[in-house]
Amino acid sequence: MAYNFLEKVNNNPSAIKEMTYANLDALAMDVREKLIDTVSKTGGHLASNLGVVELTIAMHKVFDSPKDSFVFDVGHQVYTHKLLTGRYENFDTLRQNGGISGFPNPEESLHDTFASGHSGASISSAFGLATAKELSGDNSYTVAVIGDGSFTGGLVYEALNNAGRSNAKLIVILNDNEMSISSPVGSFAKYLAAIRTNREYYKAKEMITDTLELVPGGEVLYEGLSRVKKTMKERLYNQSNFFEDLGFKYLGPIDGHSIKALCRALEGAKEIDGPVLLHIQTVKGMGYEPAELKPDQFHGISRFNVLTGEPIAMPGKKNYSDTFGEILCEIAKDDKTICAITAAMSLGTGLCDFATRYPSRFFDVGIAEEHAVTFAGGLAKGGKTPVFAVYSTFLQRAYDELVHDVAMQSDKVVLAVDRAGFVGEDGRSHQGMLDVAFLRTIPDTIIYSPSSYEELDIDLHKAIYEEGKIAAVRYPRGYEGYLPDGYKATGNSFDIYGKKTASVSIVTFGSIFSNAVVAYEKLKEYGIDVNVIKLNRVWPIDIAAIKAASKSDITLFFEEGIKSGGVGEAFGTKLLEMKYQGEYAHIAVDNTFVHHASIKALEEEFDMSPTKIVEEVLRRV
Amino acid sequence: MAYNFLEKVNNNPSAIKEMTYANLDALAMDVREKLIDTVSKTGGHLASNLGVVELTIAMHKVFDSPKDSFVFDVGHQVYTHKLLTGRYENFDTLRQNGGISGFPNPEESLHDTFASGHSGASISSAFGLATAKELSGDNSYTVAVIGDGSFTGGLVYEALNNAGRSNAKLIVILNDNEMSISSPVGSFAKYLAAIRTNREYYKAKEMITDTLELVPGGEVLYEGLSRVKKTMKERLYNQSNFFEDLGFKYLGPIDGHSIKALCRALEGAKEIDGPVLLHIQTVKGMGYEPAELKPDQFHGISRFNVLTGEPIAMPGKKNYSDTFGEILCEIAKDDKTICAITAAMSLGTGLCDFATRYPSRFFDVGIAEEHAVTFAGGLAKGGKTPVFAVYSTFLQRAYDELVHDVAMQSDKVVLAVDRAGFVGEDGRSHQGMLDVAFLRTIPDTIIYSPSSYEELDIDLHKAIYEEGKIAAVRYPRGYEGYLPDGYKATGNSFDIYGKKTASVSIVTFGSIFSNAVVAYEKLKEYGIDVNVIKLNRVWPIDIAAIKAASKSDITLFFEEGIKSGGVGEAFGTKLLEMKYQGEYAHIAVDNTFVHHASIKALEEEFDMSPTKIVEEVLRRV
Repeated sequence: MAYNFLEKVNNNPSAIKEMTYANLDALAMDVREKLIDTVSKTGGHLASNLGVVELTIAMHKVFDSPKDSFVFDVGHQVYTHKLLTGRYENFDTLRQNGGISGFPNPEESLHDTFASGHSGASISSAFGLATAKELSGDNSYTVAVIGDGSFTGGLVYEALNNAGRSNAKLIVILNDNEMSISSPVGSFAKYLAAIRTNREYYKAKEMITDTLELVPGGEVLYEGLSRVKKTMKERLYNQSNFFEDLGFKYLGPIDGHSIKALCRALEGAKEIDGPVLLHIQTVKGMGYEPAELKPDQFHGISRFNVLTGEPIAMPGKKNYSDTFGEILCEIAKDDKTICAITAAMSLGTGLCDFATRYPSRFFDVGIAEEHAVTFAGGLAKGGKTPVFAVYSTFLQRAYDELVHDVAMQSDKVVLAVDRAGFVGEDGRSHQGMLDVAFLRTIPDTIIYSPSSYEELDIDLHKAIYEEGKIAAVRYPRGYEGYLPDGYKATGNSFDIYGKKTASVSIVTFGSIFSNAVVAYEKLKEYGIDVNVIKLNRVWPIDIAAIKAASKSDITLFFEEGIKSGGVGEAFGTKLLEMKYQGEYAHIAVDNTFVHHASIKALEEEFDMSPTKIVEEVLRRV
Repeated sequence: MAYNFLEKVNNNPSAIKEMTYANLDALAMDVREKLIDTVSKTGGHLASNLGVVELTIAMHKVFDSPKDSFVFDVGHQVYTHKLLTGRYENFDTLRQNGGISGFPNPEESLHDTFASGHSGASISSAFGLATAKELSGDNSYTVAVIGDGSFTGGLVYEALNNAGRSNAKLIVILNDNEMSISSPVGSFAKYLAAIRTNREYYKAKEMITDTLELVPGGEVLYEGLSRVKKTMKERLYNQSNFFEDLGFKYLGPIDGHSIKALCRALEGAKEIDGPVLLHIQTVKGMGYEPAELKPDQFHGISRFNVLTGEPIAMPGKKNYSDTFGEILCEIAKDDKTICAITAAMSLGTGLCDFATRYPSRFFDVGIAEEHAVTFAGGLAKGGKTPVFAVYSTFLQRAYDELVHDVAMQSDKVVLAVDRAGFVGEDGRSHQGMLDVAFLRTIPDTIIYSPSSYEELDIDLHKAIYEEGKIAAVRYPRGYEGYLPDGYKATGNSFDIYGKKTASVSIVTFGSIFSNAVVAYEKLKEYGIDVNVIKLNRVWPIDIAAIKAASKSDITLFFEEGIKSGGVGEAFGTKLLEMKYQGEYAHIAVDNTFVHHASIKALEEEFDMSPTKIVEEVLRRV
């Protein structure tokens, strides 16, 4: 397929400036086809990217990137921007090991301002940058692009509250597609809907003011009218909508699929002093019917058939998220105190069935992890058993709330920590590397890490019905790993696989257990006797597990998470305090972010694959 | 002094229900005198408590605590509530070891719903509790009391956005004293001011609607007017103010020092279905002139002379915060890239001079630690050197932002972490126990911990001008501790005090170094040879420090912070990996929150006082 217009722009976004609107529309068609074609092969975020094709083109038409800075909130909608700024030729490597990242990445291009991946940071980041420019006398623009879904998060409000009283050259584009990942949540969403349906009102603003000027005050009509007139004028001038209340100049709503309308609005925004909010309306999945019809399924998607929109590899089997959702529904059937909470991730965390079956006990709070946790603490105070299902990387947004609004209180909150460990292609911002390390700093916290669906079931019951102020069950993205024949969950706080008397102990938990078992079998072939000490309850560590390890000559702790603060450090220190005389090594992710690549590739790179575990043992025996 | 009315109520808040308004006013006088008298002797939060005397009495008049639940945001304004609910007799023990906490504490009384101390959590907590009640068919009320300052934080917005679309029996009382701790910040503050000055407008709402009903449409006046009329009515009904935009019924503003007006408004709020926001206006420090005049100085105050309002013990000498502020001003004089950021704590963190001298480079973002960090990341991206000065306990609110918006980017942010370690009388929510543990989980983070002002100076320069994405300098509340004669800062990553060949190594950092030196001298008298390995750079640990310890027979790591994830665990594990054969113990705060008591008492309790250090050594040699 030839992408004539895209090739014209390749590596030279300023070419866009010379193009006619007709050619820009043709460029948009090229981009859209390229997006659909690539993502159908690599997987990735599609619906959100199809929604901002025209916007991104208009931004490059009106602004001068990288002199003017673009800040994409979350960043999964950055594909068009990448295609227009030198990454067209390598675009087929999207999200692959060594290839182009699925998120903005300043290491890839000067046109990417901030690395991103979490929602709601763009306005704060952009306002900081715009302020720095102002201090340096730099007149360039800073433009944040942020979806309506992100407006459910408090950081956005903190940023608006601060930026709104500044004179920063900041343009915030509210990309309103009436969606976060699935449907929008909360009063703000309703409010945006009201703005959209009252479009006439905003257009009529000047007209109304003019008209009021002409209304005779006092004598002709009723005595109240002059007051009405005065108050209405104050109302119109002093306040208008939510954004204007917070100090922004508001423009919109604008058709986000008309490049011409967008360019005009952006040119208008450039002329306004101080921070501007430009409200545009787009359709998620625009231009690709399967994605328009099912935007949530095409939010993040695996490889698919372009003609039908059907996934190429039907998973068929249940993953950890599905299994969690099933177990929780089962528990909630008999236990009416169970409540489920999600932060805009009901699909991803497997809670769709729960939402249907127990709507009054299901709470989607929007992309507001902090509120989710504090709200859960309130439910617990009222005698409920809240279960907050959340990706590991997003749970870290609520660290203080876990400390202050849960652990410091008298009641229990259960965390179902999904995508814990390596997550693969989504890369740095999405890897679940920190949950064990930050959770175990919090008093009265218990962490379980199942290696099978059966263990997930047991651990979730323990988390709900046994002790701990915070009881977290963390499990990986994807599917149950390899398990030895006849493997049976025990419900113990740890298990020893292999002979207790083995001279080498491999200590691990979660999905690395599968790799350790494969390594165990391989080492057996080499005549090396190891055992695998598998922590089912990762924190607090059962002292008996440490005593078991202390009997071996070599103890290797493999931790799929950050090393500093990891549980392997507590294990090592306890061994030392017990005067362990053997060799110890803590193999974990050391002082680095984990880039995008398949989970298998990451296990290999970070020395946790079966092969690498074998090598680590062989090097020492 | 006899407090007749307070004694009548003592331990029986329902007595308030029988009292006349005149008697309630007399009760308010009793309470106010008791507050001033007690806090003048114990220290504590005064201005905020004087502001809510009438409100708290009115709440107990209109509602039935503890059946109806009161949730106090931050919680430092809870003294009147404590006096009315059984803690009058022990009120003199306020904030003292074993005495009454300065914050709500459910362990003290059924009338305290949540333990608190951090700002902005109340609406989420209360909404969770109200939702639980709704699910259980419990008809009681849940009332959150929250100051206008807390509205600069995003968690409040997340809570409003969620609660606003519910039918929860939730009453939020916005206590508007036009202050957070010092002056209010951001667009929201301006917005509240607009509401206050437009009081007439809100009162006129119904009248305007009625009047518009009577305006003839179309023929008599200009053709535009019928449209104006229609739009205005939509405007008035569909939207009104910020809170109504978010789905709350709004009442106010009400005089917060008229018990009668408050009772009427609260009775009105009870009759409204769904969540209500009641806006009241109060004066911080009300009824005590020195506090009214200088509310920020009487926010949190030490013992003072009631007649003059003057502090009893003039500190005279500089504390760590003052010293930090001086050093930063000095650096900023020559280095124009330096920017200072505070989250509503310019006084507490010693930044007042900086704010005066470099106003364009000073940013008070309100109680919005998350925005502070992400904004700092933006400033750094624009070539500035942001220094965020923040209390340890509040920094934890921005954990995700540190990870995602700073460490994952390419630029440096400096953290001045004040109140790190034990903070004393403010208790559980304010102790700085977690910063080392959570900061060192973040890639590319460097942590310094000075034990003297001279070291603070050196470390701050290192943090600003040497490597690391996040460079934190953490220092205690209060003053430089004991230092041996002729003690000189070296600027090394660690120092050894005493003979390298000593058989016992005491490893520590920060203010516990002073205790270790005293212990060293004592042990010397006993003929026991120890050395003190003092980490100046706490993280990453200089491997040479670990090697030095590995030469001793006994290594004791004293850490004024949480044990799980503490740096003493990394130290122990490294020792083990080096095959250290000696004894090791990690003495730290283990799996608990630290209650209120003097710092000295806490050092004793957690085995870090000179005496306890000596004992820990003697037990082992």
